[in-house]
Amino acid sequence: MMDSYVVGVDIGGTSTKYGIVDKDGNVLHSNSIPTNTHEQVHTFIDDLYEKLSELIEKVGGVGRIKGIGVGAPNGNIYTGTIEYAPNLPWKGVIPFAKMLQDKFKLPVKLTNDANAAAVGEMMYGAAKGMKEFIMITLGTGVGSGIVTNGQLIYGHDGFAGELGHTIIIPEGRLHPGTGKKGSLESYASATGVAQSAMEILRDTDRPSLLRNIEAGKITSKDVFEAAQQDDEVAKEVFEFTGKILGMSLANFVMFSSPEAIVLFGGLTKAGDLILKPTREHMEANLIEIFQNKVKILFSHLKESDAAILGASALMWE
Amino acid sequence: MMDSYVVGVDIGGTSTKYGIVDKDGNVLHSNSIPTNTHEQVHTFIDDLYEKLSELIEKVGGVGRIKGIGVGAPNGNIYTGTIEYAPNLPWKGVIPFAKMLQDKFKLPVKLTNDANAAAVGEMMYGAAKGMKEFIMITLGTGVGSGIVTNGQLIYGHDGFAGELGHTIIIPEGRLHPGTGKKGSLESYASATGVAQSAMEILRDTDRPSLLRNIEAGKITSKDVFEAAQQDDEVAKEVFEFTGKILGMSLANFVMFSSPEAIVLFGGLTKAGDLILKPTREHMEANLIEIFQNKVKILFSHLKESDAAILGASALMWE
Repeated sequence: MMDSYVVGVDIGGTSTKYGIVDKDGNVLHSNSIPTNTHEQVHTFIDDLYEKLSELIEKVGGVGRIKGIGVGAPNGNIYTGTIEYAPNLPWKGVIPFAKMLQDKFKLPVKLTNDANAAAVGEMMYGAAKGMKEFIMITLGTGVGSGIVTNGQLIYGHDGFAGELGHTIIIPEGRLHPGTGKKGSLESYASATGVAQSAMEILRDTDRPSLLRNIEAGKITSKDVFEAAQQDDEVAKEVFEFTGKILGMSLANFVMFSSPEAIVLFGGLTKAGDLILKPTREHMEANLIEIFQNKVKILFSHLKESDAAILGASALMWE
Repeated sequence: MMDSYVVGVDIGGTSTKYGIVDKDGNVLHSNSIPTNTHEQVHTFIDDLYEKLSELIEKVGGVGRIKGIGVGAPNGNIYTGTIEYAPNLPWKGVIPFAKMLQDKFKLPVKLTNDANAAAVGEMMYGAAKGMKEFIMITLGTGVGSGIVTNGQLIYGHDGFAGELGHTIIIPEGRLHPGTGKKGSLESYASATGVAQSAMEILRDTDRPSLLRNIEAGKITSKDVFEAAQQDDEVAKEVFEFTGKILGMSLANFVMFSSPEAIVLFGGLTKAGDLILKPTREHMEANLIEIFQNKVKILFSHLKESDAAILGASALMWE
């Protein structure tokens, strides 16, 4: 019998990454398509089918593919649906796994994108061998996957682990996608970092390199680059972001008491700028029994690979 | 072989309840001793030994007892220790299970008091048959036990489920026991309710039946009785408490997505006064996928029994 492969698909708010994975966790071929340009899920699936089929041909055609694992925001492992995902263009309940299965004529399993990333970390990454950890993805939004007793927590309906939407600042910043105020995601995401910078620039006269950029167009990358050049406003933004993230992490630790928290995604590129205040404020908000015990780790997997690996791992189960 | 029994001991900040339980979950004999009058854990254990031995004699002596299950604040199932419990008079790390075992010459298992109560609810109470629920105890303090996949979450060190210490109001009310600010326990406990009332009385001139009580001596029971008499200040205290509790419950739901949250303890006697605002604010802070799904239940077990039953159940495992 010839070797078989699995496909991993990671659907993000901006782009969707996909790749062919072998049994040892090697990503043999990978690529991406934009997500947010597809207002209709049908055209998105058509696009994915066309591009992914090219990769599948490279490894010998669909006969060699065991199935497709998908990680998606608000993806539900029990139903295979994507439900009311605030960061995706498709509203309501999308029977995504079934649609993909019909298109590719292959088995499809779907889960929350951050859950998929957590599986990737547990099988191949920073959480290898751990039975108790929390994965937090700090990207356009904030996602999470929670592992206890070596298993993902799915909850009674498959939706457990939406830590980005937990409230950390009551009556705080409005989240345009959910309509809720003061959620972690409103602060500790790429979007949140950019907004924190814009608020300081708007509300104060403080000098900053960021004033060279048109106000509405500042990105978290701009803030990071300014901070690297010792810009006080930019550094304060990371300090503030770390404070809020650290406080939230303390809350999560007091929930499931993990051995480690694995941080993943774009914001981790800021390194100590974000890690230092995060760790400090996590410890400051933990009661004594939890202090100085919990590791905060950055994912060492290539960002694009972790999510693809995690999604693909669903098909090896 | 004669029937055997187990002992359940529930250590609370104010009093410690204990009882003899049969295999069907009947509490045959029970009683209590004060906790907080014993500054030394040794004198506490001596007192417990003396009083509990009387009950043990009633069922035929220690030969009939399979073991003692203990629920205690900050109790750790892995180590049998009580560690840095803010609401108990004994500081540091207390090897409680071993001390009790040496005294009684019986096997002892110890866990977090709220975890024990959760096991009691799952075996005999409101959560019977559920695999996904969170138990919240609203007493002198706020405790919790979290069940997913039909099992208690213990975390990597045995301390998971300290939801009373999660921060819900950053820079909020100081918790004298932990030194942390804005924790759920500082608001949604009996102590918190009394303090909320005293703050309104102190900071406003609003008329209230509670002004008939000496300021420092108001209890949550006083606030409840005033609210029953339609006292506006007292009603506002429950509204405020429910708002904070509801917001916290929303966060917990977005963590483990339980089928139900079971509330237990003194504050639940306030009934709809606390339940209505709690439910309203929980729903208001949940993102769409979680809305109108999660039951909030009051424990139906006799309060004294639930904790004793839960603790005793550790010995049937």
